[in-house]
Amino acid sequence: MKILVINGVNMNMLGLREPEKYGHVTLEQLETSLKEFARKLNIELDCWQSNIEGEIVEKIQKSRNDYDGIVLNAGAYTHTSVAIRDAINAVNAKVVEIHMTNIHAREEFRHISLIAPVCIGQICGFGIDSYKLGIRALIDYLTN
Amino acid sequence: MKILVINGVNMNMLGLREPEKYGHVTLEQLETSLKEFARKLNIELDCWQSNIEGEIVEKIQKSRNDYDGIVLNAGAYTHTSVAIRDAINAVNAKVVEIHMTNIHAREEFRHISLIAPVCIGQICGFGIDSYKLGIRALIDYLTN
Amino acid sequence: MKILVINGVNMNMLGLREPEKYGHVTLEQLETSLKEFARKLNIELDCWQSNIEGEIVEKIQKSRNDYDGIVLNAGAYTHTSVAIRDAINAVNAKVVEIHMTNIHAREEFRHISLIAPVCIGQICGFGIDSYKLGIRALIDYLTN
Amino acid sequence: MKILVINGVNMNMLGLREPEKYGHVTLEQLETSLKEFARKLNIELDCWQSNIEGEIVEKIQKSRNDYDGIVLNAGAYTHTSVAIRDAINAVNAKVVEIHMTNIHAREEFRHISLIAPVCIGQICGFGIDSYKLGIRALIDYLTN
Amino acid sequence: MKILVINGVNMNMLGLREPEKYGHVTLEQLETSLKEFARKLNIELDCWQSNIEGEIVEKIQKSRNDYDGIVLNAGAYTHTSVAIRDAINAVNAKVVEIHMTNIHAREEFRHISLIAPVCIGQICGFGIDSYKLGIRALIDYLTN
Amino acid sequence: MKILVINGVNMNMLGLREPEKYGHVTLEQLETSLKEFARKLNIELDCWQSNIEGEIVEKIQKSRNDYDGIVLNAGAYTHTSVAIRDAINAVNAKVVEIHMTNIHAREEFRHISLIAPVCIGQICGFGIDSYKLGIRALIDYLTN
Amino acid sequence: MKILVINGVNMNMLGLREPEKYGHVTLEQLETSLKEFARKLNIELDCWQSNIEGEIVEKIQKSRNDYDGIVLNAGAYTHTSVAIRDAINAVNAKVVEIHMTNIHAREEFRHISLIAPVCIGQICGFGIDSYKLGIRALIDYLTN
Amino acid sequence: MKILVINGVNMNMLGLREPEKYGHVTLEQLETSLKEFARKLNIELDCWQSNIEGEIVEKIQKSRNDYDGIVLNAGAYTHTSVAIRDAINAVNAKVVEIHMTNIHAREEFRHISLIAPVCIGQICGFGIDSYKLGIRALIDYLTN
Amino acid sequence: MKILVINGVNMNMLGLREPEKYGHVTLEQLETSLKEFARKLNIELDCWQSNIEGEIVEKIQKSRNDYDGIVLNAGAYTHTSVAIRDAINAVNAKVVEIHMTNIHAREEFRHISLIAPVCIGQICGFGIDSYKLGIRALIDYLTN
Amino acid sequence: MKILVINGVNMNMLGLREPEKYGHVTLEQLETSLKEFARKLNIELDCWQSNIEGEIVEKIQKSRNDYDGIVLNAGAYTHTSVAIRDAINAVNAKVVEIHMTNIHAREEFRHISLIAPVCIGQICGFGIDSYKLGIRALIDYLTN
Amino acid sequence: MKILVINGVNMNMLGLREPEKYGHVTLEQLETSLKEFARKLNIELDCWQSNIEGEIVEKIQKSRNDYDGIVLNAGAYTHTSVAIRDAINAVNAKVVEIHMTNIHAREEFRHISLIAPVCIGQICGFGIDSYKLGIRALIDYLTN
Amino acid sequence: MKILVINGVNMNMLGLREPEKYGHVTLEQLETSLKEFARKLNIELDCWQSNIEGEIVEKIQKSRNDYDGIVLNAGAYTHTSVAIRDAINAVNAKVVEIHMTNIHAREEFRHISLIAPVCIGQICGFGIDSYKLGIRALIDYLTN
Repeated sequence: MKILVINGVNMNMLGLREPEKYGHVTLEQLETSLKEFARKLNIELDCWQSNIEGEIVEKIQKSRNDYDGIVLNAGAYTHTSVAIRDAINAVNAKVVEIHMTNIHAREEFRHISLIAPVCIGQICGFGIDSYKLGIRALIDYLTN
Repeated sequence: MKILVINGVNMNMLGLREPEKYGHVTLEQLETSLKEFARKLNIELDCWQSNIEGEIVEKIQKSRNDYDGIVLNAGAYTHTSVAIRDAINAVNAKVVEIHMTNIHAREEFRHISLIAPVCIGQICGFGIDSYKLGIRALIDYLTN
Repeated sequence: MKILVINGVNMNMLGLREPEKYGHVTLEQLETSLKEFARKLNIELDCWQSNIEGEIVEKIQKSRNDYDGIVLNAGAYTHTSVAIRDAINAVNAKVVEIHMTNIHAREEFRHISLIAPVCIGQICGFGIDSYKLGIRALIDYLTN
Repeated sequence: MKILVINGVNMNMLGLREPEKYGHVTLEQLETSLKEFARKLNIELDCWQSNIEGEIVEKIQKSRNDYDGIVLNAGAYTHTSVAIRDAINAVNAKVVEIHMTNIHAREEFRHISLIAPVCIGQICGFGIDSYKLGIRALIDYLTN
Repeated sequence: MKILVINGVNMNMLGLREPEKYGHVTLEQLETSLKEFARKLNIELDCWQSNIEGEIVEKIQKSRNDYDGIVLNAGAYTHTSVAIRDAINAVNAKVVEIHMTNIHAREEFRHISLIAPVCIGQICGFGIDSYKLGIRALIDYLTN
Repeated sequence: MKILVINGVNMNMLGLREPEKYGHVTLEQLETSLKEFARKLNIELDCWQSNIEGEIVEKIQKSRNDYDGIVLNAGAYTHTSVAIRDAINAVNAKVVEIHMTNIHAREEFRHISLIAPVCIGQICGFGIDSYKLGIRALIDYLTN
Repeated sequence: MKILVINGVNMNMLGLREPEKYGHVTLEQLETSLKEFARKLNIELDCWQSNIEGEIVEKIQKSRNDYDGIVLNAGAYTHTSVAIRDAINAVNAKVVEIHMTNIHAREEFRHISLIAPVCIGQICGFGIDSYKLGIRALIDYLTN
Repeated sequence: MKILVINGVNMNMLGLREPEKYGHVTLEQLETSLKEFARKLNIELDCWQSNIEGEIVEKIQKSRNDYDGIVLNAGAYTHTSVAIRDAINAVNAKVVEIHMTNIHAREEFRHISLIAPVCIGQICGFGIDSYKLGIRALIDYLTN
Repeated sequence: MKILVINGVNMNMLGLREPEKYGHVTLEQLETSLKEFARKLNIELDCWQSNIEGEIVEKIQKSRNDYDGIVLNAGAYTHTSVAIRDAINAVNAKVVEIHMTNIHAREEFRHISLIAPVCIGQICGFGIDSYKLGIRALIDYLTN
Repeated sequence: MKILVINGVNMNMLGLREPEKYGHVTLEQLETSLKEFARKLNIELDCWQSNIEGEIVEKIQKSRNDYDGIVLNAGAYTHTSVAIRDAINAVNAKVVEIHMTNIHAREEFRHISLIAPVCIGQICGFGIDSYKLGIRALIDYLTN
Repeated sequence: MKILVINGVNMNMLGLREPEKYGHVTLEQLETSLKEFARKLNIELDCWQSNIEGEIVEKIQKSRNDYDGIVLNAGAYTHTSVAIRDAINAVNAKVVEIHMTNIHAREEFRHISLIAPVCIGQICGFGIDSYKLGIRALIDYLTN
Repeated sequence: MKILVINGVNMNMLGLREPEKYGHVTLEQLETSLKEFARKLNIELDCWQSNIEGEIVEKIQKSRNDYDGIVLNAGAYTHTSVAIRDAINAVNAKVVEIHMTNIHAREEFRHISLIAPVCIGQICGFGIDSYKLGIRALIDYLTN
């Protein structure tokens, strides 16, 4: 089983970005931690980040040959990108949407995800644990 | 650490209720399975279900003396109950909201949760795994 | 054939409640009248009333073993209860929604029924005749 | 007692029109069946159909001399015609609105009837039985 | 100068139609009265009524050869007919929109006229005087 | 019979104000012209203008002792003043609302008048003729 | 004169519930204080609390035989319960709606009360004084 | 303790204004009555009325030196004046908003107060008793 | 292959109607041109126009025996007619919706077509070429 | 070149009004500072303040003879006054709208300015520098 | 004459992407087919695809030197990109918007195109024929 | 002090793009002019432009090490990009939002900026002077 973690826009600023909301762990540290976590669960895991909507679209498109599923934190594109939604549909990707913060407790425009309706499910609010829960959820889904 | 799993309205029909959406596991089997899961994680876990909004309110009120946190599947009350939201606030309960189905992929009135803004986070779409992910998320939250 | 008539919130006040809208027949008289009506049509008919949303949910849940269909006047819960809607779906109940008053001629919030979309049909505006028409409609539906 | 059944736009296609929704009975067969039904109930009944909004308006206007009440299935005009609503008011017609399908379970624009607020009541969802229930409801109303 | 008075849907019921709102003058009496009024003002005036939207459209289309302007009471079509609006534009007709009742004091859906934006102006609320004021307004407009 | 013409905010700029919309007649010329018009119709007529909402309120309040009715062009306050609406109700004033321009053909926020629902009727779109039509309409109303 | 104070959902947590909003007085202390207050005003006063919507409905229904009026703090049900509104109408109860907090200064969904339109009036924002003001208001209303 | 009662637009018509809604007491009588009421409560009380929004703004501004708090019935400006709201904030005035009628039972545009969110609380529906309750509420607030 | 071109309301004014938008070609010239165009493409083509909604409904109903498909320019009825939408569904007609103008660049109420969702596709903005493109599109659709 | 600075409602409280938002500079100090600033830029500058909407309207009306342009901070009237908008249009005034606070970062009703669409531009968020930037912007505009 | 076909986001997945909606032809095959089609019509045609909004913007900008017009299928960016709309305006490009699917028959957010108002026209619903119709429409437009 | 001017999407077309709105100065000329302007004010200033949302995000991210503040004209992304808003927050950038045109006087969707709430302030409507005013505003902000 091979899983891809996609981090979207502004997630490269992790650790620097509003640390009272997102914590002090950097993206690099997060990715290292997730790979270790994957190793313990005996799965393969790659991490990838981009700030460009179209590149995320293409990564999802290409994932269909290389990965069994995706854990996706699209960042702000969650609320504005029909393109990413269509990419998931286009390749029938198995995606778990995650967010570090509880998007339902923030500005009203963050309550709605354009991507969630084409995902398996959504996990939000647990900081970097959201990624780990997403990986577990995806493994469970793919093994059932 | 002691956790309470609250199942709300119509969850007593699990196994019978729209099995193509909710699966064939009954509430009793689910609760047994969750308790076993808790044992492995070395925590105490109680399960409780009610169809009556006011009883769920009272269970949350009383939980503050007996439990460290709650995994809550409020069912349909998720979308209509300000009372449950206020109960969580009233006792400053630590709650993880979960749903078996991906509520963001169903009727539009199910996209909005009145309860989520006062919870730690929300997990939905993973069937009975949603409960297990919720328990893990709550433990992580309480231990940090 | 066995039919259940469920009266929801405030219907126990029938005869007392805004008689210019609901008439002077009491709930007891109505139920007696409906049972007599059923006898003439050669069907079994039980009547039941509750003011508590969760109890109506449970009555619908349990009806699946004992009744072929339900004539439901949910009262005010018609416009606010996703829980009753889900209960009908959960047990795939055959329900005819009825109202004594013409809800489409009253306050705007009464024009929309959360329950109607999961019922066979809706009858409103005919006073206590709404119940009798509902029973007929249900019998016709069940015999076809 | 003399009752008029008015069928509105596209109802002349009955039997041909989306039979999975409207069944295989033709308008002619329906009208024959309703007349027979009326004979059993000892009332006079005429049937009339038009696809033209203004003609339906005029038929309602003229009905006030010839009929005690109307059973009206306005078809699509239900949702768009203020003119028919005004015609009912203009002659103070006693109208029962009926629909073969459960309009509350279809597209959102079919949930609202511009006509219902000026009718005695509304019956929907019971196929051709909706007409018979409407005739019964009207007789009950007129005899009380 | 030659003016056409067009009365739309349900205006043929004048005198019969909700007399507390529209008064006891019949359409025939109104038209006689308006012609006499026109004679005093030394203009030619024709009156015409239809309940059918498409016929009103055609009357407006044809008016461009025969009339200098139109006084239009479209009745209920005021609030639903883009077709009449387009007909006025199509022949660049000079139209004064009038209503007997004060439409801004009735149901909210009567506050908006689809036709007014392509008319010279709107007069409402003065009973049959609305027609006379409309004729005067049109004469003033055409002579300036 | 004694009538008051109230001109509201910015109407003192008449003749200077957007002459392509409002023409070149000044407020003084308009008032002179209206008084002459009144003389011909054998009624008394006063004219008054203010740019201050509260002063217009007070003028309407005081009018109940001195005038039989009011022709009111409230200008921009038409769309924002609940106070003027309440003043009309407070003294049960007989008011004809008029506008020089066709407000239904301008920006959307000018389509709705907060004042119209408590007036006898509304006349708009006929330039300074709107005032004369308003005076006629008011006389007709008061003499019936 | 006999008055009933009804406290709705979550009000049993008074003193514990968000004390920065609701203060440190418990429900028991509040009720004692209100009874003493009533004694000084020479009226009879009972207090009652429930977290269950349907029970509050029933209490209001039964109050018509025992009480002259009700001071009602429905808590969260204020914003979601058509059932309580209907109960007040059903028995024509004389109700003063009160809130400890200023609901118009909180989340937008708390600005609208479904119950207020069928009450005598609404008092909010004065902490436990809201109850005392409500009792005074009710006495004044009942004695006039 | 010194309190100011501000009456806003159209309140000078009290006694004359829609007496079925506002009663037959004049503003002068009301003010005399309130001063007597204040005397009994051993506080100083001034009364002031204006129909002009900007004057009310200035009165609130100046009140900060002379009064401990304000009982404010802004009349129609309640629903349209951001300026009065800002004045209250500008001088951090302690204001109790009151209304004689139950604004929540009237037209929908009267349900929302732009001023309430910056007041201590709101009292409405009790006729002239609303003022007395407001004075009591303010005294209680200022003495706590 | 036999195709029907239906022109709806006001299209008989082509050439006269707002020529800056619709050009100077008359309906007769358009129909002649389309028939010639059809002859070149070796298909049969009839043209038909009506201003009456109900007649268009009936033409669509009857087309099912005589035509393989329809090119439909419903004019203003595009935005208001559920009846035409239902007629297309009733006979499962193969319809290409066309417009001469770019309806998405005009008034907002013209952006939404009630008919488009039940058509094969929509073509707009190309003047009389829209018809020719529609015919081509329909032929391609019918031959695939 | 001669410029007028108009300060609207509540701006006379500057220095006292919510100093954490508006700072500690008084209106008098601000005006002195702006005049000095103007002197350095070699332009004439007058300052004027009013709390009354109608007075601001009149000041704008009269400005057309005396000033080349206006820097306008209308305060709360920004969001509610169609009258001020119309005054600017009436005399074709050249106006730069300014705000000390960033209105787009405050309550939602402050995001929309009714005045901005008829101004040259809008500057907000820079405290008293907003005035200086507005003066510069106006000079640049008038000299181009 | 030289035409550019721009395919937007996810169109590179053609043939793979939801083939039940978009068919089995790949983008490469489509482009080959369109070039052949162009050759027959004696025009030059280039094809270009990108998943990145900003690149599509730049391609449109640069097209003004090299192409007479554009056939644009912007994919999901149709519904979210003001940037592409502005690019079309910036270079006054002649654009025909096309879609393979009938966007008016899909999710509601796909009914509105931000781009259509600045295009010549829109064609949707005809699969790969939409491109050919678009090319024809553009040629017709450019040659007239 | 070192400032960065970021021009967003389509700003590279300056001089070519709708010159009646944006003028004839090219981006290169603008940037030269701004640098000269900066030199006079004794600050360092860099200019940068991109059409790609994600690149703008990254430029803002990186700016935190190199610049004291940003003058940002995001072009069309102003109204659609949550990503740029989040980038500003992520690095706590000091940003002045500017626009050459008065966005409040254009299409309604341009009235709302997603970015403004996280900026210091907004300046719009002054052509290329908007940039200079923005630079001044930023310097003032940074030096206070």
